[in-house]
Amino acid sequence: MMPRQKTYGLMLAAATLLIPACAVVAWRDRLWPIVLFLVWAVAAALVAGIFERRAFKREMARLAERASRDIVKSRQDLVGTLSHHRHDWMNELQILYGYLRMQKIDKAIAVVDRIKEEMERDSRISRLGSPELSAYLLSFRTFCDTMTLDARVDESLQASCVASAGPERVSRAAIGMINAYRVRVSAATAEENKLRIAFSEADGELRIETSYEGGWSAWSSLREDVSQSLPDGARLSASADGDGEGGARKLTVVVPFE
Amino acid sequence: MMPRQKTYGLMLAAATLLIPACAVVAWRDRLWPIVLFLVWAVAAALVAGIFERRAFKREMARLAERASRDIVKSRQDLVGTLSHHRHDWMNELQILYGYLRMQKIDKAIAVVDRIKEEMERDSRISRLGSPELSAYLLSFRTFCDTMTLDARVDESLQASCVASAGPERVSRAAIGMINAYRVRVSAATAEENKLRIAFSEADGELRIETSYEGGWSAWSSLREDVSQSLPDGARLSASADGDGEGGARKLTVVVPFE
Repeated sequence: MMPRQKTYGLMLAAATLLIPACAVVAWRDRLWPIVLFLVWAVAAALVAGIFERRAFKREMARLAERASRDIVKSRQDLVGTLSHHRHDWMNELQILYGYLRMQKIDKAIAVVDRIKEEMERDSRISRLGSPELSAYLLSFRTFCDTMTLDARVDESLQASCVASAGPERVSRAAIGMINAYRVRVSAATAEENKLRIAFSEADGELRIETSYEGGWSAWSSLREDVSQSLPDGARLSASADGDGEGGARKLTVVVPFE
Repeated sequence: MMPRQKTYGLMLAAATLLIPACAVVAWRDRLWPIVLFLVWAVAAALVAGIFERRAFKREMARLAERASRDIVKSRQDLVGTLSHHRHDWMNELQILYGYLRMQKIDKAIAVVDRIKEEMERDSRISRLGSPELSAYLLSFRTFCDTMTLDARVDESLQASCVASAGPERVSRAAIGMINAYRVRVSAATAEENKLRIAFSEADGELRIETSYEGGWSAWSSLREDVSQSLPDGARLSASADGDGEGGARKLTVVVPFE
């Protein structure tokens, strides 16, 4: 946060005082070296002070600018995420409309059931207990177009579980895992890249299971990468990851309750 | 942004130098006033510098904290706004489901049409050309529970119109108007308070029309309040506001293209 190098600026200003100090010693019986020393000291303090102030101003302007950019970004995210979801629902409605026109009530009911199910799923993501994680999962499509994310929250998982495991830790573990997959997605493959992530609870621990299908590179370092990005207390599950070629690439992280 | 009073701190520190300076003049042939001056100058510079640095650190911590609070808030807004919209659609689906179960296809189609119309409406709001304004309008319900907002964007209004009128100005004008109504809503009345806001284009100008129905107080000062909060170039339309008791309370703001 603090511009570290400015400390050297002040020290440098203090160091230059050696020059008039030498003059004071050399011409001990004269008045002018003393005047020089005084003027020098005041000038050095002023110059160092002005530079420091400027650096702080710059730093503060930078912070304020970044904050306002973040706000603009977050509004775009909100509008973009809503648009994505609306677009999905519009598509479903279009299908529903077709069935209704064709008088196929059973199929129409099946579509409504599917839409409801999807909404329930989103609703469970919303109620995870970590706004950061919920917002990340729900708006994933607005900032990543190289893979799709299919996030599921187990019906039995309560927001209190995430609260017990620490929303910050759960959020960091999950986002860390997703990002580790994300950087490995090879954009060259035309086939669809899909990452599933599922949140569930078992034996007083929160489980985050991921499985990936699609093009990828540097898969072998994924496990290490994820384990390094995990928050305190979270750990990779020993058993549940298979890395067979062609099969789904899986990884499970466990966050114990605090 | 800058802690203004700190300038006085530095000036004060410099001013206190007058005391040892007087001593230097008074005891011109002695060494101790000079030593006093030097020690005093260094001490004053250090004290002023430390205080200034501390003030800056505080200011910067405040900025950073506000920024991170804004980010958390924006994520909650995103999740909350999505939930509100999802909730609305779920309600409509429930109605649709009922009609389907009763084999009333015509009514079901009417519901689908209505949902589509509402989605088109939201979609036009999203494409207004000002993410700030779009996000404000679409997420209004998450931060205001004393009145409902019914925002409409004319089908013929292009995002380029808002761009011509200046997204910043349009956003400020619209949000300023809504807030002026918002502070006048009397929460005491049980009846529903509803504000309509409509965006349209006419004769190279962007028109923002509002009309309010519901409980209110201090209505008479609304016009003045809004006119004061308007950005440069925007103006209240002379004709279109009626303030008859019982009738809808209307106001129109015009933002000419730049």
